[in-house]
Amino acid sequence: MDISQETFIASLGVHIRQLREKKGMSQQDLADDSEIRKTQIGRIERAEINTTIKTLIKIANALDVEPKELLDFPLK
Amino acid sequence: MDISQETFIASLGVHIRQLREKKGMSQQDLADDSEIRKTQIGRIERAEINTTIKTLIKIANALDVEPKELLDFPLK
Repeated sequence: MDISQETFIASLGVHIRQLREKKGMSQQDLADDSEIRKTQIGRIERAEINTTIKTLIKIANALDVEPKELLDFPLK
Repeated sequence: MDISQETFIASLGVHIRQLREKKGMSQQDLADDSEIRKTQIGRIERAEINTTIKTLIKIANALDVEPKELLDFPLK
């Protein structure tokens, strides 16, 4: 069955927020470590933007996880 | 250690090509099934573009894998 883009991007945003909070990082901490603007971090977590692979790599590096872990959550 | 964006995107392109060939699909087959232009498929496989999560979801659906599997390859 095909995965809905909207559902996946929403779950990705929630998952990134959970990983960030698990590390005890604020959006500002993640912004500083990833060199992504805090407003963009917020938009990704709220699933408002179609982010790129480069941005995902920066977030993964800042969260100290592999990029594939960002996409590793249960699909609905 | 931080993952290099260039290295990761290059490995991603190779991995997508390998998954596509394993399914016996041409670039045109993948383009047709994913509704992504064939030229863009080629650019992703050759790591010429910073693709988006929506495009990765379309490719994953066309290859009948989960999106996280597209990022599941050994890191250098």
